[in-house]
Amino acid sequence: MKLLEEKIRSEGRISEGGVLKVDSFLNHQLDVEFLNEMGKEFKRLFSDVEITKILTIEASGIAIASIAAQYFGNVPVVFAKKTESKNLDADTYDSDVFSFTKGKTYKIKVSKKYMNKGDKVLILDDFLANGFATLGMIDIVKKAEAEVAGVGIVIEKSFQSGGKILRELGVNLHSLARIEFDEKNQIIFNEND
Amino acid sequence: MKLLEEKIRSEGRISEGGVLKVDSFLNHQLDVEFLNEMGKEFKRLFSDVEITKILTIEASGIAIASIAAQYFGNVPVVFAKKTESKNLDADTYDSDVFSFTKGKTYKIKVSKKYMNKGDKVLILDDFLANGFATLGMIDIVKKAEAEVAGVGIVIEKSFQSGGKILRELGVNLHSLARIEFDEKNQIIFNEND
Repeated sequence: MKLLEEKIRSEGRISEGGVLKVDSFLNHQLDVEFLNEMGKEFKRLFSDVEITKILTIEASGIAIASIAAQYFGNVPVVFAKKTESKNLDADTYDSDVFSFTKGKTYKIKVSKKYMNKGDKVLILDDFLANGFATLGMIDIVKKAEAEVAGVGIVIEKSFQSGGKILRELGVNLHSLARIEFDEKNQIIFNEND
Repeated sequence: MKLLEEKIRSEGRISEGGVLKVDSFLNHQLDVEFLNEMGKEFKRLFSDVEITKILTIEASGIAIASIAAQYFGNVPVVFAKKTESKNLDADTYDSDVFSFTKGKTYKIKVSKKYMNKGDKVLILDDFLANGFATLGMIDIVKKAEAEVAGVGIVIEKSFQSGGKILRELGVNLHSLARIEFDEKNQIIFNEND
Protein backbone atom coordinates (compact mmCIF):
# COMPACT_ATOMS: atom_id res chain seq x y z
CA MET A 1 0.00 0.00 0.00
CA LYS A 2 1.74 3.09 -1.35
CA LEU A 3 0.15 5.45 1.15
CA LEU A 4 1.43 3.36 4.07
CA GLU A 5 4.94 3.20 2.64
CA GLU A 6 4.93 7.01 2.40
CA LYS A 7 3.61 7.26 5.95
CA ILE A 8 6.35 4.96 7.26
CA ARG A 9 8.99 6.95 5.35
CA SER A 10 7.78 10.27 6.72
CA GLU A 11 6.82 9.31 10.29
CA GLY A 12 8.55 6.02 11.09
CA ARG A 13 11.73 6.09 13.11
CA ILE A 14 14.31 3.38 13.51
CA SER A 15 15.50 3.02 17.07
CA GLU A 16 19.01 2.03 18.06
CA GLY A 17 18.17 -1.65 18.28
CA GLY A 18 16.93 -1.66 14.68
CA VAL A 19 13.26 -1.54 15.67
CA LEU A 20 10.87 0.41 13.43
CA LYS A 21 8.76 2.73 15.55
CA VAL A 22 5.42 3.85 14.19
CA ASP A 23 3.98 5.17 17.42
CA SER A 24 2.88 8.43 15.79
CA PHE A 25 0.01 6.73 13.99
CA LEU A 26 -0.29 3.01 14.79
CA ASN A 27 0.60 1.89 18.30
CA HIS A 28 0.57 4.75 20.78
CA GLN A 29 -0.91 7.73 19.00
CA LEU A 30 -3.55 6.69 16.46
CA ASP A 31 -4.23 8.46 13.18
CA VAL A 32 -7.87 7.52 12.79
CA GLU A 33 -8.28 8.93 9.29
CA PHE A 34 -5.29 6.88 8.18
CA LEU A 35 -6.61 3.77 9.97
CA ASN A 36 -9.72 4.20 7.83
CA GLU A 37 -7.60 4.18 4.66
CA MET A 38 -5.98 0.95 5.83
CA GLY A 39 -9.38 -0.51 6.72
CA LYS A 40 -10.58 0.15 3.16
CA GLU A 41 -7.45 -1.51 1.78
CA PHE A 42 -8.01 -4.62 3.91
CA LYS A 43 -11.55 -4.78 2.52
CA ARG A 44 -10.20 -4.55 -1.03
CA LEU A 45 -7.65 -7.31 -0.36
CA PHE A 46 -10.18 -9.62 1.29
CA SER A 47 -13.18 -8.69 -0.87
CA ASP A 48 -13.41 -12.23 -2.28
CA VAL A 49 -13.84 -14.02 1.06
CA GLU A 50 -16.76 -14.13 3.44
CA ILE A 51 -15.92 -12.73 6.88
CA THR A 52 -18.22 -13.13 9.89
CA LYS A 53 -15.80 -12.05 12.62
CA ILE A 54 -12.54 -10.17 13.08
CA LEU A 55 -10.02 -11.40 15.66
CA THR A 56 -7.12 -9.35 16.97
CA ILE A 57 -5.00 -9.17 20.11
CA GLU A 58 -4.71 -6.48 22.74
CA ALA A 59 -3.59 -3.75 22.76
CA SER A 60 -2.20 -2.40 19.47
CA GLY A 61 -4.45 -4.47 17.20
CA ILE A 62 -7.70 -3.14 18.65
CA ALA A 63 -7.79 0.22 16.84
CA ILE A 64 -7.12 -1.06 13.31
CA ALA A 65 -9.47 -4.03 13.84
CA SER A 66 -12.32 -1.80 15.08
CA ILE A 67 -11.93 0.74 12.29
CA ALA A 68 -11.51 -1.95 9.61
CA ALA A 69 -14.67 -3.76 10.79
CA GLN A 70 -16.67 -0.80 9.50
CA TYR A 71 -15.73 -1.86 5.96
CA PHE A 72 -16.75 -5.48 6.57
CA GLY A 73 -20.39 -4.75 7.38
CA ASN A 74 -19.63 -4.05 11.06
CA VAL A 75 -18.90 -7.70 11.85
CA PRO A 76 -18.08 -8.29 15.53
CA VAL A 77 -14.47 -7.75 16.58
CA VAL A 78 -12.98 -9.93 19.30
CA PHE A 79 -9.67 -9.12 20.92
CA ALA A 80 -7.67 -11.93 22.52
CA LYS A 81 -6.57 -11.07 26.06
CA LYS A 82 -3.00 -11.46 27.21
CA THR A 83 -3.61 -11.11 30.90
CA GLU A 84 -5.83 -12.68 33.48
CA SER A 85 -8.86 -10.47 33.90
CA LYS A 86 -11.78 -10.45 36.28
CA ASN A 87 -13.93 -9.59 33.27
CA LEU A 88 -13.04 -12.72 31.32
CA ASP A 89 -15.09 -15.88 31.59
CA ALA A 90 -13.39 -18.95 32.99
CA ASP A 91 -14.45 -20.81 29.87
CA THR A 92 -11.90 -19.79 27.25
CA TYR A 93 -9.91 -21.04 24.28
CA ASP A 94 -6.24 -20.57 25.17
CA SER A 95 -2.99 -20.66 23.30
CA ASP A 96 0.62 -20.22 24.39
CA VAL A 97 2.59 -17.49 22.68
CA PHE A 98 6.34 -17.04 22.99
CA SER A 99 7.48 -13.44 23.39
CA PHE A 100 11.02 -12.61 22.30
CA THR A 101 10.78 -9.22 24.00
CA LYS A 102 9.97 -10.76 27.34
CA GLY A 103 11.90 -14.01 26.82
CA LYS A 104 8.98 -16.11 27.99
CA THR A 105 5.70 -17.70 27.03
CA TYR A 106 2.38 -16.06 27.84
CA LYS A 107 -1.19 -17.21 27.38
CA ILE A 108 -3.71 -15.58 25.08
CA LYS A 109 -7.38 -16.19 25.76
CA VAL A 110 -10.70 -15.82 23.98
CA SER A 111 -14.02 -16.53 25.67
CA LYS A 112 -15.77 -19.53 24.12
CA LYS A 113 -18.88 -17.35 23.83
CA TYR A 114 -17.31 -15.19 21.15
CA MET A 115 -15.60 -17.68 18.85
CA ASN A 116 -18.02 -20.17 17.39
CA LYS A 117 -18.03 -23.17 15.14
CA GLY A 118 -18.49 -22.04 11.55
CA ASP A 119 -17.23 -18.49 12.07
CA LYS A 120 -15.19 -17.22 9.12
CA VAL A 121 -12.49 -15.26 10.85
CA LEU A 122 -10.26 -12.50 9.57
CA ILE A 123 -7.25 -12.11 11.87
CA LEU A 124 -5.89 -8.54 11.87
CA ASP A 125 -2.79 -7.24 13.62
CA ASP A 126 -0.40 -4.32 13.47
CA PHE A 127 2.89 -6.23 13.10
CA LEU A 128 4.04 -9.62 11.87
CA ALA A 129 7.56 -10.67 12.84
CA ASN A 130 8.12 -14.25 13.99
CA GLY A 131 4.41 -14.93 13.75
CA PHE A 132 3.95 -16.38 17.21
CA ALA A 133 1.00 -14.16 18.12
CA THR A 134 -0.69 -14.85 14.78
CA LEU A 135 -0.13 -18.60 15.12
CA GLY A 136 -1.64 -18.40 18.61
CA MET A 137 -4.74 -16.72 17.19
CA ILE A 138 -4.98 -19.32 14.40
CA ASP A 139 -4.75 -22.02 17.07
CA ILE A 140 -7.67 -20.46 18.96
CA VAL A 141 -9.80 -20.21 15.78
CA LYS A 142 -9.15 -23.91 15.08
CA LYS A 143 -9.93 -24.93 18.66
CA ALA A 144 -13.31 -23.24 18.19
CA GLU A 145 -13.84 -25.23 14.96
CA ALA A 146 -14.04 -21.92 13.14
CA GLU A 147 -12.23 -21.10 9.90
CA VAL A 148 -9.33 -18.70 9.26
CA ALA A 149 -10.63 -16.80 6.24
CA GLY A 150 -7.54 -14.59 6.12
CA VAL A 151 -4.78 -12.82 7.99
CA GLY A 152 -4.26 -9.08 7.44
CA ILE A 153 -1.14 -7.38 8.74
CA VAL A 154 -0.26 -3.69 8.67
CA ILE A 155 3.54 -4.08 8.69
CA GLU A 156 5.27 -7.37 7.97
CA LYS A 157 8.95 -7.62 8.86
CA SER A 158 9.84 -9.73 5.87
CA PHE A 159 13.35 -10.43 7.22
CA GLN A 160 11.75 -12.47 10.01
CA SER A 161 10.10 -15.80 9.47
CA GLY A 162 6.42 -15.23 10.33
CA GLY A 163 5.28 -14.39 6.79
CA LYS A 164 7.13 -17.36 5.29
CA ILE A 165 5.68 -19.77 7.85
CA LEU A 166 2.11 -18.52 7.33
CA ARG A 167 2.38 -18.65 3.52
CA GLU A 168 3.79 -22.18 3.66
CA LEU A 169 0.83 -23.15 5.83
CA GLY A 170 -1.42 -21.91 3.02
CA VAL A 171 -2.82 -19.01 5.04
CA ASN A 172 -4.52 -16.29 2.96
CA LEU A 173 -2.09 -13.57 4.14
CA HIS A 174 -1.99 -9.95 3.02
CA SER A 175 0.38 -7.39 4.48
CA LEU A 176 -0.07 -3.69 3.71
CA ALA A 177 3.69 -3.12 3.85
CA ARG A 178 6.58 -5.57 3.90
CA ILE A 179 9.81 -4.12 5.21
CA GLU A 180 13.43 -5.01 5.72
CA PHE A 181 16.55 -2.96 6.42
CA ASP A 182 19.62 -2.47 4.28
CA GLU A 183 23.19 -2.50 5.61
CA LYS A 184 22.86 1.22 6.49
CA ASN A 185 19.77 0.44 8.61
CA GLN A 186 17.52 2.17 6.06
CA ILE A 187 14.08 0.73 5.29
CA ILE A 188 13.56 -1.21 2.08
CA PHE A 189 9.98 -1.96 1.04
CA ASN A 190 9.38 -5.37 -0.48
CA GLU A 191 6.68 -6.11 -2.98
CA ASN A 192 3.19 -6.45 -1.57
CA ASP A 193 -0.36 -6.86 -2.85
CA MET B 1 -28.26 7.15 26.79
CA LYS B 2 -31.41 5.07 26.39
CA LEU B 3 -29.91 2.76 23.75
CA LEU B 4 -27.02 1.86 26.07
CA GLU B 5 -29.34 1.16 28.99
CA GLU B 6 -31.29 -1.23 26.77
CA LYS B 7 -28.07 -2.85 25.58
CA ILE B 8 -26.89 -3.35 29.17
CA ARG B 9 -30.29 -4.79 30.14
CA SER B 10 -30.31 -7.24 27.25
CA GLU B 11 -26.61 -8.23 27.06
CA GLY B 12 -25.03 -7.32 30.38
CA ARG B 13 -24.53 -10.01 32.96
CA ILE B 14 -23.84 -9.64 36.65
CA SER B 15 -21.18 -12.03 37.87
CA GLU B 16 -21.14 -13.59 41.31
CA GLY B 17 -18.96 -10.87 42.77
CA GLY B 18 -21.45 -8.20 41.71
CA VAL B 19 -19.42 -7.14 38.68
CA LEU B 20 -21.32 -6.01 35.58
CA LYS B 21 -19.94 -7.81 32.54
CA VAL B 22 -20.42 -6.21 29.15
CA ASP B 23 -17.90 -8.29 27.25
CA SER B 24 -20.36 -9.01 24.43
CA PHE B 25 -20.03 -5.47 23.07
CA LEU B 26 -17.54 -3.33 25.01
CA ASN B 27 -14.48 -5.04 26.42
CA HIS B 28 -13.79 -8.38 24.77
CA GLN B 29 -16.11 -8.64 21.81
CA LEU B 30 -16.77 -5.23 20.23
CA ASP B 31 -20.04 -4.18 18.61
CA VAL B 32 -18.64 -1.63 16.18
CA GLU B 33 -22.01 -0.33 14.99
CA PHE B 34 -22.99 0.28 18.59
CA LEU B 35 -19.63 1.91 19.35
CA ASN B 36 -20.49 4.34 16.54
CA GLU B 37 -23.79 5.20 18.24
CA MET B 38 -21.89 5.92 21.45
CA GLY B 39 -19.30 7.95 19.55
CA LYS B 40 -22.09 10.15 18.14
CA GLU B 41 -23.53 10.59 21.63
CA PHE B 42 -20.15 11.69 23.02
CA LYS B 43 -19.96 14.25 20.21
CA ARG B 44 -23.44 15.54 21.14
CA LEU B 45 -22.50 15.79 24.81
CA PHE B 46 -19.19 17.57 24.12
CA SER B 47 -20.35 19.60 21.12
CA ASP B 48 -19.76 22.87 22.97
CA VAL B 49 -16.06 22.33 23.73
CA GLU B 50 -13.05 22.36 21.43
CA ILE B 51 -11.19 19.05 21.34
CA THR B 52 -7.76 18.64 19.76
CA LYS B 53 -6.89 15.20 21.12
CA ILE B 54 -8.53 12.16 22.69
CA LEU B 55 -6.73 10.31 25.49
CA THR B 56 -7.63 6.82 26.67
CA ILE B 57 -5.90 3.89 28.33
CA GLU B 58 -5.11 0.42 27.03
CA ALA B 59 -6.76 -1.92 26.35
CA SER B 60 -10.55 -1.56 26.65
CA GLY B 61 -10.64 2.19 26.01
CA ILE B 62 -8.97 1.98 22.60
CA ALA B 63 -11.97 0.84 20.55
CA ILE B 64 -14.47 3.43 21.80
CA ALA B 65 -11.84 6.21 21.62
CA SER B 66 -10.90 5.33 18.02
CA ILE B 67 -14.49 5.08 16.82
CA ALA B 68 -15.54 8.23 18.69
CA ALA B 69 -12.64 10.23 17.19
CA GLN B 70 -14.38 9.94 13.82
CA TYR B 71 -17.09 12.27 15.16
CA PHE B 72 -14.55 14.81 16.45
CA GLY B 73 -12.96 15.54 13.08
CA ASN B 74 -10.57 12.58 13.33
CA VAL B 75 -8.47 14.22 16.05
CA PRO B 76 -5.49 12.07 17.12
CA VAL B 77 -6.15 9.42 19.75
CA VAL B 78 -3.42 8.59 22.27
CA PHE B 79 -3.64 5.56 24.51
CA ALA B 80 -1.72 5.56 27.79
CA LYS B 81 0.36 2.42 28.24
CA LYS B 82 0.24 0.36 31.38
CA THR B 83 3.29 -1.76 30.73
CA GLU B 84 6.89 -1.17 29.86
CA SER B 85 7.23 -1.47 26.11
CA LYS B 86 10.18 -1.49 23.75
CA ASN B 87 8.09 0.69 21.48
CA LEU B 88 7.65 3.47 24.01
CA ASP B 89 10.06 6.39 24.20
CA ALA B 90 12.05 6.82 27.36
CA ASP B 91 10.75 10.36 27.55
CA THR B 92 7.26 10.02 29.00
CA TYR B 93 4.74 11.66 31.30
CA ASP B 94 3.97 9.10 34.02
CA SER B 95 1.36 8.75 36.70
CA ASP B 96 0.79 6.13 39.39
CA VAL B 97 -2.58 4.39 39.39
CA PHE B 98 -3.84 2.17 42.17
CA SER B 99 -5.58 -0.99 41.02
CA PHE B 100 -8.11 -2.56 43.39
CA THR B 101 -8.21 -5.69 41.25
CA LYS B 102 -4.49 -6.23 41.54
CA GLY B 103 -4.08 -4.67 44.97
CA LYS B 104 -1.13 -2.61 43.86
CA THR B 105 -0.03 0.55 42.10
CA TYR B 106 1.02 0.53 38.44
CA LYS B 107 2.43 3.23 36.21
CA ILE B 108 0.69 4.66 33.18
CA LYS B 109 2.79 6.39 30.55
CA VAL B 110 2.33 8.73 27.61
CA SER B 111 5.19 9.75 25.36
CA LYS B 112 5.94 13.49 25.66
CA LYS B 113 5.77 13.66 21.87
CA TYR B 114 2.04 13.03 21.83
CA MET B 115 0.72 15.22 24.64
CA ASN B 116 1.53 18.86 24.11
CA LYS B 117 1.12 22.19 25.83
CA GLY B 118 -2.16 23.73 24.74
CA ASP B 119 -3.83 20.47 23.70
CA LYS B 120 -7.53 20.39 24.58
CA VAL B 121 -7.97 16.82 25.66
CA LEU B 122 -11.09 14.68 25.85
CA ILE B 123 -10.45 11.69 28.10
CA LEU B 124 -12.59 8.67 27.13
CA ASP B 125 -12.84 5.34 28.91
CA ASP B 126 -15.17 2.38 29.16
CA PHE B 127 -15.71 2.32 32.94
CA LEU B 128 -15.53 4.76 35.83
CA ALA B 129 -15.47 3.24 39.31
CA ASN B 130 -13.07 4.70 41.87
CA GLY B 131 -11.67 7.03 39.26
CA PHE B 132 -8.01 6.20 39.76
CA ALA B 133 -7.27 5.56 36.07
CA THR B 134 -9.08 8.76 35.05
CA LEU B 135 -7.26 10.79 37.71
CA GLY B 136 -3.99 9.34 36.40
CA MET B 137 -4.84 10.50 32.89
CA ILE B 138 -5.82 13.96 34.17
CA ASP B 139 -2.46 14.10 35.97
CA ILE B 140 -0.65 13.32 32.71
CA VAL B 141 -2.61 15.99 30.80
CA LYS B 142 -1.67 18.55 33.45
CA LYS B 143 1.99 17.53 33.48
CA ALA B 144 2.00 18.25 29.74
CA GLU B 145 0.47 21.70 30.43
CA ALA B 146 -2.47 20.65 28.31
CA GLU B 147 -6.12 21.14 29.27
CA VAL B 148 -8.77 18.57 30.22
CA ALA B 149 -11.67 19.65 28.00
CA GLY B 150 -13.86 16.81 29.22
CA VAL B 151 -14.14 13.26 30.47
CA GLY B 152 -16.50 10.85 28.70
CA ILE B 153 -17.33 7.50 30.28
CA VAL B 154 -19.42 4.68 28.84
CA ILE B 155 -20.53 3.16 32.16
CA GLU B 156 -20.18 4.95 35.48
CA LYS B 157 -20.61 2.88 38.61
CA SER B 158 -22.38 5.60 40.53
CA PHE B 159 -22.16 3.64 43.81
CA GLN B 160 -18.41 4.13 43.73
CA SER B 161 -16.70 7.44 44.33
CA GLY B 162 -15.00 8.28 41.00
CA GLY B 163 -17.87 10.31 39.55
CA LYS B 164 -18.35 12.29 42.75
CA ILE B 165 -14.64 13.09 43.02
CA LEU B 166 -14.40 14.23 39.38
CA ARG B 167 -17.54 16.41 39.61
CA GLU B 168 -16.27 18.02 42.83
CA LEU B 169 -13.01 18.79 41.03
CA GLY B 170 -15.09 20.64 38.43
CA VAL B 171 -14.32 18.19 35.62
CA ASN B 172 -16.69 18.37 32.64
CA LEU B 173 -17.83 14.75 33.04
CA HIS B 174 -20.47 12.95 31.02
CA SER B 175 -21.30 9.27 31.46
CA LEU B 176 -23.51 7.47 28.93
CA ALA B 177 -24.96 5.26 31.65
CA ARG B 178 -24.78 5.51 35.44
CA ILE B 179 -25.52 2.29 37.24
CA GLU B 180 -25.95 0.88 40.70
CA PHE B 181 -27.42 -2.34 42.06
CA ASP B 182 -30.48 -2.85 44.25
CA GLU B 183 -30.61 -5.26 47.18
CA LYS B 184 -31.49 -8.11 44.78
CA ASN B 185 -28.36 -7.38 42.74
CA GLN B 186 -30.46 -6.00 39.86
CA ILE B 187 -29.22 -3.01 37.89
CA ILE B 188 -30.73 0.41 38.54
CA PHE B 189 -29.98 3.18 36.06
CA ASN B 190 -29.44 6.61 37.53
CA GLU B 191 -30.17 9.83 35.74
CA ASN B 192 -27.64 10.88 33.12
CA ASP B 193 -27.23 13.54 30.47
